[in-house]
Amino acid sequence: MVNIVILGTGNLAKHLYSAFSKADNVDVVQIVGRNREELQQFSEKVHTSNDFNAILDADVYLIVVKDDAIAEVSNYLANKKGVVVHTSGATDLNAIKPENSGVFYPLQTFTKGKTVDFSSIPICIEAEEKESLETLRKLAGSISQNVHHIDSEQRKKLHLAAVFVNNFTNYLYGVGEELCLEEGLSFDLLKPLILETAEKVRTMSPKEAQTGPACRNDIKSMESHQELLNNEEHITLYKLLSQAIKQAHEEEL
Amino acid sequence: MVNIVILGTGNLAKHLYSAFSKADNVDVVQIVGRNREELQQFSEKVHTSNDFNAILDADVYLIVVKDDAIAEVSNYLANKKGVVVHTSGATDLNAIKPENSGVFYPLQTFTKGKTVDFSSIPICIEAEEKESLETLRKLAGSISQNVHHIDSEQRKKLHLAAVFVNNFTNYLYGVGEELCLEEGLSFDLLKPLILETAEKVRTMSPKEAQTGPACRNDIKSMESHQELLNNEEHITLYKLLSQAIKQAHEEEL
Repeated sequence: MVNIVILGTGNLAKHLYSAFSKADNVDVVQIVGRNREELQQFSEKVHTSNDFNAILDADVYLIVVKDDAIAEVSNYLANKKGVVVHTSGATDLNAIKPENSGVFYPLQTFTKGKTVDFSSIPICIEAEEKESLETLRKLAGSISQNVHHIDSEQRKKLHLAAVFVNNFTNYLYGVGEELCLEEGLSFDLLKPLILETAEKVRTMSPKEAQTGPACRNDIKSMESHQELLNNEEHITLYKLLSQAIKQAHEEEL
Repeated sequence: MVNIVILGTGNLAKHLYSAFSKADNVDVVQIVGRNREELQQFSEKVHTSNDFNAILDADVYLIVVKDDAIAEVSNYLANKKGVVVHTSGATDLNAIKPENSGVFYPLQTFTKGKTVDFSSIPICIEAEEKESLETLRKLAGSISQNVHHIDSEQRKKLHLAAVFVNNFTNYLYGVGEELCLEEGLSFDLLKPLILETAEKVRTMSPKEAQTGPACRNDIKSMESHQELLNNEEHITLYKLLSQAIKQAHEEEL
């Protein structure tokens, strides 16, 4: 049995609580947070507190707060025996003040109210102490079959990669939506393509999967596309991405 | 029953043949193409010819060739009675020389050898003559439940939108893969995130779904991300996309 305390009541904290409360061999002993309203939602199911000086004992303390609040929250755990971890992709292991520190980073985007199947989500773990790493491996393994020991440098790069494939990609979906709406077309038209594009790279490298005018250096098509764009930012983006694709493809030849 | 001739033997031609050959009420009477080797693959199942002067009669002639060859191929159909259509997103209806012209544009990315379920793929149809539009609606409806009457201007914009959500997005997946490989990490780590990002916009507008440092104007995270990038092109792209997300988000406030 791994006993855990979750510090934080935001979106990820809720998703993690929901997953751990269903897991065998994990006991969520307490949820600690400043926001009383958010705490209220947990209070029927688990012990809650808004007093960071009244944290119960546990094997793992999961700090699930905004990046810049991790260090401060970790200070309250200075005298605890268990491993103190944060769940951030971009934050160093040593942001955690107590010596027995670690990271428990689930690499996924979590939407409020949308149930997530943790079993296939990569969970990237790291710990200062060997024994703690094993505890984290056990804890992560209780909700996911996709657990990886990854150091802070690797994790930061992974987080950056996630920005490209998630945040930036989502922005491009938004451009697609805008272009549809300009013509009175539904964004629904693009959804099968969006899904297939994501599905495709499950079995194919993105470089192999690349298609389109830039990839085949079809200058005529690229010019007519740019003429259709009204937004200067979209034109700059179109040029830059096309140039990058063209270059990546030429390097391959 | 709709009788069709497919002109072309490439990737899309194969996918379309495969879908139509299973459809009720559609008869593929002939495949015409220059490439004898490719034709060979069809020859056991359907009448084939590499002579563009020996095209059989049909209700619909589907020109499934590269954009710049559409006009030329359509010339061979000048004396035919059926409707002559191309399957291109970026090409005008009037690239087709015969008067009874149309467009049959399946909005999807087609991968060689990967079976596609046409039933949910949007098929965008357009025709010069009203009766031909009905024929195309029937033909498209035989393989898809997602048929739309869309004019040439709308289709071009849609094709441009597809470049953003497919070609450009795929390029970003490639950047993600590169960043993983630099750290000795598997691209597999990003796949659940890639899929969830695509799934998310099925039920949420991309603008609502936007997350990440640029969206919350987290300058510290954006700076550390840029420090991690070695490739000048990726840095420019990071800055431009972050700026665009930031701006789109500010406009909303």
